[in-house]
Amino acid sequence: MPGPDAASAGAAGVNPAAELDRARAGDARALARLLSLVEDGSPRARSVIRDLLPRTGGARVIGLTGAPGVGKSTTAAALVGAFRAAGRRVAVLAVDPTSPFTGGALLGDRVRMQEHATDDQVFIRSMASRGHLGGLAASTPQAIRVLDAAGFELILVETVGVGQAEVAVASLSDSVVVLLAPGLGDAIQAAKAGILEVADLFVVNKADKPDSHQVVRDLRNMLALGHHEPGAWKPPIITAVATGGLRDPGIIELEGALDAHWSWLRSSGELERRRRERAREEITALAFAELRARLAADGVDDLAARVAAGTLDPFQAAEDLLARHV
Amino acid sequence: MPGPDAASAGAAGVNPAAELDRARAGDARALARLLSLVEDGSPRARSVIRDLLPRTGGARVIGLTGAPGVGKSTTAAALVGAFRAAGRRVAVLAVDPTSPFTGGALLGDRVRMQEHATDDQVFIRSMASRGHLGGLAASTPQAIRVLDAAGFELILVETVGVGQAEVAVASLSDSVVVLLAPGLGDAIQAAKAGILEVADLFVVNKADKPDSHQVVRDLRNMLALGHHEPGAWKPPIITAVATGGLRDPGIIELEGALDAHWSWLRSSGELERRRRERAREEITALAFAELRARLAADGVDDLAARVAAGTLDPFQAAEDLLARHV
Repeated sequence: MPGPDAASAGAAGVNPAAELDRARAGDARALARLLSLVEDGSPRARSVIRDLLPRTGGARVIGLTGAPGVGKSTTAAALVGAFRAAGRRVAVLAVDPTSPFTGGALLGDRVRMQEHATDDQVFIRSMASRGHLGGLAASTPQAIRVLDAAGFELILVETVGVGQAEVAVASLSDSVVVLLAPGLGDAIQAAKAGILEVADLFVVNKADKPDSHQVVRDLRNMLALGHHEPGAWKPPIITAVATGGLRDPGIIELEGALDAHWSWLRSSGELERRRRERAREEITALAFAELRARLAADGVDDLAARVAAGTLDPFQAAEDLLARHV
Repeated sequence: MPGPDAASAGAAGVNPAAELDRARAGDARALARLLSLVEDGSPRARSVIRDLLPRTGGARVIGLTGAPGVGKSTTAAALVGAFRAAGRRVAVLAVDPTSPFTGGALLGDRVRMQEHATDDQVFIRSMASRGHLGGLAASTPQAIRVLDAAGFELILVETVGVGQAEVAVASLSDSVVVLLAPGLGDAIQAAKAGILEVADLFVVNKADKPDSHQVVRDLRNMLALGHHEPGAWKPPIITAVATGGLRDPGIIELEGALDAHWSWLRSSGELERRRRERAREEITALAFAELRARLAADGVDDLAARVAAGTLDPFQAAEDLLARHV
């Protein structure tokens, strides 16, 4: 891995190569500094990503999503417990795509995860959107790269299921787990939000509640409507009662199903296909963000004045704008 | 106005110049055909817009927005009645930015508007998003241009207040009317959604309900918190009980306040400023849409494969992508 030049390291007071070595050895503070460094999308962040790129590709990324209240944090905590019992190093990235206005609670750093806080083989980081979905979509892949390069075998990306944003974050994962529960984010709502299509595994949580059978039934019926290619993965439905412990009903089954999905991903060639697709989406999002920044700096005043006056048509103006900015 | 060439007119079986003449004479079917022609954003649509551009700029665009159930259609119908009583030619563009998934009801062509359906000086058109906000944001300005060129003095753009999308559509208007009602889309919700900032006039509808005083009070308090430049427009709060008739309480007051706002727009220079801003947003949206189309056609396969393999960083890939597409 090429080291950063001395000047840039001095400028920010952080040496990324040294921080990565510390992070790989289990230093959570070094890892936190590295993550902060890449989240802002600055030229320096880009150079850090470039440098650690050769060390990435080894981690397995698991997305966990569902409506608020469905039990995502308890399930994540239980799953982390199960992974740790198997001796695996785990990172949790809690992504909150909701804007400050809609009242979404910040994920991560919560009570259920507290018991893992003292385990130096578990790293927990929460990322909140700063009112801009594009920003989060652009910075989450960089955080995943850093955790990957830092040697985590498993990266759990937890996000609130609120429609579009959540589908976008789910697309960052190798395996997507969709959580449902009686009365909360039921199968029909999930179908409407386009979540069924992105799920590799379903967990019907709160399975001790009487209505949970109906959720499983609805889900089965909806999945039966879908088209199944021969050799394709058939998403299993796991029932669970997650309270945060690795022995919670359904957690061992979920761990097993995730391992089975991982085997299928590798043997079918789907893993490579997904990772290329993920890269494609990331590149496109970055290209749009870059163009947006250039247009904002431009102001578009001259073209806007002519279009407003009716002397230039808006389509030609758009062409002119693109032509002068790329 | 330059006529379209014979070949393109023949291709679609519609002669835009002739249709526009018919539309200006009050032929609603000709106008409907012209609107259908421009909504798809095709090269032909662009040429139609280019041709009718010199005839635009005369119409006054009034945006009407608010939460579902607040009484937008009854208020719009009542306002149309008032405008018609004053001998003005009116078009209503009902824009539904909600996706089919979220269950938004299609506006327009509704019972309240029925009484205007036989008046050839009133034209009503509904436009629904096809699951893509960008699409609607791009096609609405074209529909407004067609109605403008067809000689409508007033264009009422009615849209459901659902946050971002609705703010975007409101920005197409010279005057924005925000509707509130007791229990529905109250002042605090409107503030959260960023609607207060875009409003030029407020209507507190269902003013016969006891809670309406509280809505007016909340609204006044919130507006008092805002910053007021000397000479700036101070949004009036009009109370109304709209049932669809021009003599409904508050409708004459609303008509008067709209005329006062129009006078202020012209005397203050704000009209020109807004229309330039509107053009700026339209050009930018079209540029993004164009770039999105080019990227979709590209596929980005080569760059994605290298990023997925860790041999190219995503930022450089984004730069390369932009460079080869514009």
